[in-house]
Amino acid sequence: MAGDVRAAVIGACGRMGTLIIQKIQATDGICLSAAFDVANTGTDIGEVIRIGKLGIPVSDPKDLTKVLKESKTDVVIDFTVAAATAVNAPAAAAAGANLIIGTTGLSAEQKTNIVSAITTNNVAAVISSNYSIGVNVFFKLLKEASQYLGDYDIEIIEAHHNQKKDAPSGTAVTAAEIISSSLGGKEFAYGREGLCPRGKEIGIHAVRGGDIVGDHTVMFIGNSERIEIRHQAHTREIFVGGAVMAAKWVCAQKKGVVYEMTDVLNL
Amino acid sequence: MAGDVRAAVIGACGRMGTLIIQKIQATDGICLSAAFDVANTGTDIGEVIRIGKLGIPVSDPKDLTKVLKESKTDVVIDFTVAAATAVNAPAAAAAGANLIIGTTGLSAEQKTNIVSAITTNNVAAVISSNYSIGVNVFFKLLKEASQYLGDYDIEIIEAHHNQKKDAPSGTAVTAAEIISSSLGGKEFAYGREGLCPRGKEIGIHAVRGGDIVGDHTVMFIGNSERIEIRHQAHTREIFVGGAVMAAKWVCAQKKGVVYEMTDVLNL
Amino acid sequence: MAGDVRAAVIGACGRMGTLIIQKIQATDGICLSAAFDVANTGTDIGEVIRIGKLGIPVSDPKDLTKVLKESKTDVVIDFTVAAATAVNAPAAAAAGANLIIGTTGLSAEQKTNIVSAITTNNVAAVISSNYSIGVNVFFKLLKEASQYLGDYDIEIIEAHHNQKKDAPSGTAVTAAEIISSSLGGKEFAYGREGLCPRGKEIGIHAVRGGDIVGDHTVMFIGNSERIEIRHQAHTREIFVGGAVMAAKWVCAQKKGVVYEMTDVLNL
Amino acid sequence: MAGDVRAAVIGACGRMGTLIIQKIQATDGICLSAAFDVANTGTDIGEVIRIGKLGIPVSDPKDLTKVLKESKTDVVIDFTVAAATAVNAPAAAAAGANLIIGTTGLSAEQKTNIVSAITTNNVAAVISSNYSIGVNVFFKLLKEASQYLGDYDIEIIEAHHNQKKDAPSGTAVTAAEIISSSLGGKEFAYGREGLCPRGKEIGIHAVRGGDIVGDHTVMFIGNSERIEIRHQAHTREIFVGGAVMAAKWVCAQKKGVVYEMTDVLNL
Repeated sequence: MAGDVRAAVIGACGRMGTLIIQKIQATDGICLSAAFDVANTGTDIGEVIRIGKLGIPVSDPKDLTKVLKESKTDVVIDFTVAAATAVNAPAAAAAGANLIIGTTGLSAEQKTNIVSAITTNNVAAVISSNYSIGVNVFFKLLKEASQYLGDYDIEIIEAHHNQKKDAPSGTAVTAAEIISSSLGGKEFAYGREGLCPRGKEIGIHAVRGGDIVGDHTVMFIGNSERIEIRHQAHTREIFVGGAVMAAKWVCAQKKGVVYEMTDVLNL
Repeated sequence: MAGDVRAAVIGACGRMGTLIIQKIQATDGICLSAAFDVANTGTDIGEVIRIGKLGIPVSDPKDLTKVLKESKTDVVIDFTVAAATAVNAPAAAAAGANLIIGTTGLSAEQKTNIVSAITTNNVAAVISSNYSIGVNVFFKLLKEASQYLGDYDIEIIEAHHNQKKDAPSGTAVTAAEIISSSLGGKEFAYGREGLCPRGKEIGIHAVRGGDIVGDHTVMFIGNSERIEIRHQAHTREIFVGGAVMAAKWVCAQKKGVVYEMTDVLNL
Repeated sequence: MAGDVRAAVIGACGRMGTLIIQKIQATDGICLSAAFDVANTGTDIGEVIRIGKLGIPVSDPKDLTKVLKESKTDVVIDFTVAAATAVNAPAAAAAGANLIIGTTGLSAEQKTNIVSAITTNNVAAVISSNYSIGVNVFFKLLKEASQYLGDYDIEIIEAHHNQKKDAPSGTAVTAAEIISSSLGGKEFAYGREGLCPRGKEIGIHAVRGGDIVGDHTVMFIGNSERIEIRHQAHTREIFVGGAVMAAKWVCAQKKGVVYEMTDVLNL
Repeated sequence: MAGDVRAAVIGACGRMGTLIIQKIQATDGICLSAAFDVANTGTDIGEVIRIGKLGIPVSDPKDLTKVLKESKTDVVIDFTVAAATAVNAPAAAAAGANLIIGTTGLSAEQKTNIVSAITTNNVAAVISSNYSIGVNVFFKLLKEASQYLGDYDIEIIEAHHNQKKDAPSGTAVTAAEIISSSLGGKEFAYGREGLCPRGKEIGIHAVRGGDIVGDHTVMFIGNSERIEIRHQAHTREIFVGGAVMAAKWVCAQKKGVVYEMTDVLNL
């Protein structure tokens, strides 16, 4: 529709790209302007991802600048791999497109180059390792609850699939750090066995089993009551909704700035 | 200790009074100054409630003014019945004591008289129907979460004992109203059977069984994730901690004002 | 491996077929013998479903009899559509293969024909609408618990995605019926609002939101304690493990018999 | 009522005795025949425990034999302390009363003497450390589930109050042992930190906080689904219902036998 934010997706034929395009199609105020992938070039992207013809062919990323301009793209969404994003993000910025980057594993040098391209070309960008709306709100609620329930006993239980080799999860560690810094510093206990009287520590428990995507529960336990705040991921695609929200948001922001997902959510 | 807030408890020998005194004894910065009850007058209150001699006899409420002054009481805590509070609260205010009132069922006239005594005598008071720290924080978190997750599907599940005759619980209704007003008005659905495609309503589900004290869970359910905020009461005495917190707090506040529990918690 | 059960999969290139083949590859004592689909005929099935070359080409279902014999197939797994199964299942039975049928929506006549082919050709089969190991065990545990906790208050909470139009879910209804018949008949209540003192009914609560695959919780609530039995589906592919288990199992059973999933699990 | 089991309670004025008497009053088929305590002798037991006059005075345990005979007591319920039970249980058996013993901490010699008195006097008895119906059913369900879900990943989460000094709880250990022995031996992991790839162990996680009475959750986690079995104690009096059930049951059993709570529940 006229006035819609025009978004291009890189890695359009992959799992994440497919989900982002589906979400764009289902969201008011934003539409797909272009689709890039090294596979299926020339084929209609809607047919490739089996949602019906969209009238937009898959383009080769080496034609990025030209296609972005011709398609009047406002924002480029990139959840691919570091080596590709290191090339494509600066090119998109040079073409005047705003950026939503969810690629992980970028080196310090790669990040610096991307940020430099954003400021040089005066576009706006969101760069975040966690586009999940729910996880960011979860963190916000924990911070809030810690302020009021700081003298309650606090325990964190996380659960992930049985192939996850490290414990606890990064999200559980972030949760513990948010609470701890809000309370002036806490020790962590990663399990209890034998005689272990409870002090003021935060207990962190890592459950492992099956194909659990990711559960995180924080318990604030007092005398005669408890409050639990829980985030459960249903699928590994929890970033999709946040990425599309960020794409709509970033186009209305001050240029030359790199934002975080917490800015998008106004947390 | 010198500098401690000196608190008197009315209805000291009852279940609530006993719990409040135990909590005062376990809390820094506050101490028991006097104990009132119509039963056991003259006996040491510590012996009556079986926590060891405290050196404070149970006094008759008809000696309220005299005993409050002699005991240099800063604040009176009253969780008794409307007929008693209607008499004792104004008397305590006239004696210069601040007030914590948790009595329910006060008539409009009784309340007006109490507020009038508070302003006339320039004391500070907290009057609230819900001193639970957890429930008040729960409400605060719901309001917060609604701002960010307003387009998620929202469902409330509450559980109470099998003797509770009405549904849903007052706390569930308050939770639903907080969310609804934060989102500009929502319809409520109190169960689902048959063909009932989901719209934008808030589902409210009342579980009844055994001797459950009170569970409340609010689910914010999106695509690929859900956030749950849950309050579980362990015992019916969830008001005790909040009452003692309020007693310490109220003594440092501006006089002539009636506060809410949300003020105490700075929510 | 020699001695492994040799299993063929119909609808091999579809989502369910792909998952079943992956599970066969990951399970000891069973191996893939043949793969049938109307698409991709002649291509290696491992390459089609992107798990690496398996040396087994996709065959056209119209060559079913010939390919089953040449591949020495012991058992055919069919989770396709009624029209296809109505043709292929009798043909597979005639070729001497045992059957695992998970296709839903078969008409009475189609079922009768399939059963007739099974007995006529003296093969063994499992026909079930629910191959989930967990759901079947869940039902078994409910039956067990009902025997001991029959005078506890019983409540069922189910949660499904917001596109599900009917309530409660079929699984919740089955759960309620299992409990009810174990207790000599119970009424059901599908929500509570207003004055509704609890009697001996089973409360059934249908939560709807987001993309929840399917949660079912049964609460047995007594005085001073509760027991909860909960099944949560993570994905819609919960039938895969049970189907492969059934395939291994059925080959060792008495021929000429149609079994249920409860027989496989010995519930 | 004529035909009711006539039950006497030792330690009648204490918390456990009070609860047992209240439960007896509320249960069909059983009535209170006598009440023993070292305190309040001669006072009506109903008035002592504030449930209204019952016409039964508190008797001194030193008059046990005489009072049991005069009151035609069928069964004696004893949840007191080892030193008292060691004396009173044999005396009650000698008076021909059946026994329900929930006292903990009995020495081997004390137990032997009690069992000897039971067989010598040809009465029936239940001696158990756990009269909770729910916990016993919980154990039974775990055993059942382990038989069917033995290759699922199994994790146990327990939660208790912050004054509990040891971990994990005795009930969690019993649960783990029941599962492990049903599966031919499992290792236990009491927490996870750092690199710790999951093997075949049972994870056991001890949450500590506030005044939680006792939660136990066992998770059986597979691919695409999980089953959870959960027991939550609401109060520390979860033994009361089971004790009264046992009292009614034991009077109809073969004499000269010492039963377990699992016999009462027919688990």
